[in-house]
Amino acid sequence: MRMLDIILKKRHGEELTKEEIDFWVKGYAAGHIPDYQVSALLMAIYFQGMTSRETADLTLAMAYSGDVVDLSAIPGIKVDKHSTGGVGDTTTLVVAPLVAACGVPVAKMSGRGLGHTGGTIDKLVSIPGFNPFQSIQDFIRIVKKTGIAVVGQTGNLVPADKMIYALRDVTGTVEHKSLIASSVMSKKIASGADAIVLDVKTGSGAFMESAEDAFSLAQEMVSVGTLVGRKTAALITDMSQPLGMAVGNALEVKEAVEILKGERTGALLDVSLILGAYMLYMAGRCSSIEQGGELIQEALHSGRGADKFRKMIHAQGGDQRAADDPSLLPLSDNVIPIKAEQAGYIYSIDARGVGQAAHILGAGRSTKEDPIDHSVGIVLSKRMGEMVRKGETLAYFYVTREDLFERAADAFKRAVVIKQERPQPKPLVYGVVTAEGIERY
Amino acid sequence: MRMLDIILKKRHGEELTKEEIDFWVKGYAAGHIPDYQVSALLMAIYFQGMTSRETADLTLAMAYSGDVVDLSAIPGIKVDKHSTGGVGDTTTLVVAPLVAACGVPVAKMSGRGLGHTGGTIDKLVSIPGFNPFQSIQDFIRIVKKTGIAVVGQTGNLVPADKMIYALRDVTGTVEHKSLIASSVMSKKIASGADAIVLDVKTGSGAFMESAEDAFSLAQEMVSVGTLVGRKTAALITDMSQPLGMAVGNALEVKEAVEILKGERTGALLDVSLILGAYMLYMAGRCSSIEQGGELIQEALHSGRGADKFRKMIHAQGGDQRAADDPSLLPLSDNVIPIKAEQAGYIYSIDARGVGQAAHILGAGRSTKEDPIDHSVGIVLSKRMGEMVRKGETLAYFYVTREDLFERAADAFKRAVVIKQERPQPKPLVYGVVTAEGIERY
Repeated sequence: MRMLDIILKKRHGEELTKEEIDFWVKGYAAGHIPDYQVSALLMAIYFQGMTSRETADLTLAMAYSGDVVDLSAIPGIKVDKHSTGGVGDTTTLVVAPLVAACGVPVAKMSGRGLGHTGGTIDKLVSIPGFNPFQSIQDFIRIVKKTGIAVVGQTGNLVPADKMIYALRDVTGTVEHKSLIASSVMSKKIASGADAIVLDVKTGSGAFMESAEDAFSLAQEMVSVGTLVGRKTAALITDMSQPLGMAVGNALEVKEAVEILKGERTGALLDVSLILGAYMLYMAGRCSSIEQGGELIQEALHSGRGADKFRKMIHAQGGDQRAADDPSLLPLSDNVIPIKAEQAGYIYSIDARGVGQAAHILGAGRSTKEDPIDHSVGIVLSKRMGEMVRKGETLAYFYVTREDLFERAADAFKRAVVIKQERPQPKPLVYGVVTAEGIERY
Repeated sequence: MRMLDIILKKRHGEELTKEEIDFWVKGYAAGHIPDYQVSALLMAIYFQGMTSRETADLTLAMAYSGDVVDLSAIPGIKVDKHSTGGVGDTTTLVVAPLVAACGVPVAKMSGRGLGHTGGTIDKLVSIPGFNPFQSIQDFIRIVKKTGIAVVGQTGNLVPADKMIYALRDVTGTVEHKSLIASSVMSKKIASGADAIVLDVKTGSGAFMESAEDAFSLAQEMVSVGTLVGRKTAALITDMSQPLGMAVGNALEVKEAVEILKGERTGALLDVSLILGAYMLYMAGRCSSIEQGGELIQEALHSGRGADKFRKMIHAQGGDQRAADDPSLLPLSDNVIPIKAEQAGYIYSIDARGVGQAAHILGAGRSTKEDPIDHSVGIVLSKRMGEMVRKGETLAYFYVTREDLFERAADAFKRAVVIKQERPQPKPLVYGVVTAEGIERY
């Protein structure tokens, strides 16, 4: 078998066999096949696509290129949840404790943020003492004892995916739904998920800006998950404005805690409740999504979700008092309001722009090596469709480096459009994709 | 400027600016831009194409990536000739002396063979003592004195083209007309041509199998040549069967000499005469193609062409008696006839198959480093459309390694199809492309 023939076959638009896919993925991971041949193949895939079967084979080849976590010591169906990435998207911190509070074990591996989107692990480490770096043994032990653990990727997981993703990143082959789907799903499979609930974002702050692209990516991921024997469902949710009001690491933890304690409602809670209902249903905890929704609501209102969150912090070495006393979180004291320069309706709040503004303040990283500032960020005072007076506060900036403020504020102002016209409201959930088909709301 | 943005721009189907093309070609040649980004860009070009303007800019960027030969010390318009590569395609050895005999200087740089096609330099070095490796100074001195020199590429010519071609070869991006055109034309420009006559082959033994693809490649090359200020014309000629009767290095020299001495006619002579007529016309030696044809005929019949060939051999250190005494050429004594296994018409002689048979005998090389055997090859006894009796000789194989004969003979027999049905004759010249347009014959 020759890599050149595989490139030519794909360039001609033919379907690669499982053997061919295994050959190039293994060969690349082992260093036998050079970068330049893989990047040519990836670009050919970008143009010619892959069938669901090819995508499933690529997913498995990457999933089994390194360690695969064995969660069988934890009883029950392990449901994982994945968001394609957004701004102010703290659903994991809300939904994971709620699901665990319903008796479904949550053994979750999360990533770090990159670019304008945040990462769950970055948010959690703003809790004093919290340790996301657990061995597989400790990870499983904590879940068995506490019912929940959220950790960073550990061990030698999906090395082939890491190599291929790094190559896609510099060769213009990131934006292809089969490649995205195989990358996401390989990680979920390697981290031991039995079932997977996907939150596919759409809108200006999402990878897939149009709803159609998001549905298409969702279909691809559900199809791959089903082909590899993992029950998979995908919700398509709005990311045209930040999901929560807070954008920034410690600020998002604070918001999640407030939601879990019933002090706050809004879009972030609403999406978390739906995701939680699906997770319970797919774990076999209930016989319908509606029932799942009721159980999740119960976990919220009874305070059992907030309690689970405290227990998780404690089990992972963190100071659980942070869940009740926000002053224990590293939040900047320098809070600068951003005022509306005209009156009108908030016509749009470009999520990407707000994410970039927070990024400029220091909340995000541009390269994997960049340090981040957990104490900075943005808290919105308004959402799309609300009215605003001239001079009214649009958002509060939490700042540590004043020299970055001006540029961040400019980015934020460009992201917020005020008009005399009232905007069309956007749905929060566009629909759901399961193995049975697509349901649009 | 970032290479990633250039890849993305091309992936989106946009036109790259001259600055962007210079950036990536120079950056790659200098080692600043890695292979994997260039191969991704080449694959994106494969799918999205390039405009003629982009192709011209790429051509110039590659042409000026190294030395550019200055032929201005040689008076007159220097016309170069290039064949896209074929089997039994010895036109340079016939036409170059004829054109030089008409008073037009021929300062030609030629390549070596690769795969199933032969190379002029490999053929010439089968002449005892012939030295194709001349310094630029000696090259120019010989042309000024003798009116003709045919040398191998010398100096640091088109390093960027060499790197890009080597990368295309292993990344499945060879077969794209804009990339082919820019590679060919960059070499012609760097080797100092004022005007260029292209011989674009079509048929089973050619790079462009269909006539439409050949016309399309010819248009691309003529358009690029014109855009960079070189008068360019392209003939589209048949390569469905070998052009000459001989395939193999010394055998092809012998055939070319026989043609120059008026001892042989046929397709190889016919194509050479037309190419020569165009070269004279483009050098301003005559006012019409017809007149050019008459001049070339005159050079042939007077023996001045053969004489020019002898002078060239002598000037480049070779034994000019080889032009009159074939026994001085390294021809194998072991000549094995291949007999027809049935009677009928020669329905087709797949040029690629014959080229591969000669390659198996040792006439060609698979990698740049392979040695070749100048004394082996194939001489056809029949051409397409001729009748053949069972047991009649189809060809003579000149063999040195008997162990290779069987496999070569098998390849040859697969290439020659005998049917009861008479084949449709194919045109020898399909048409011509100039800056003024396409003329189909």
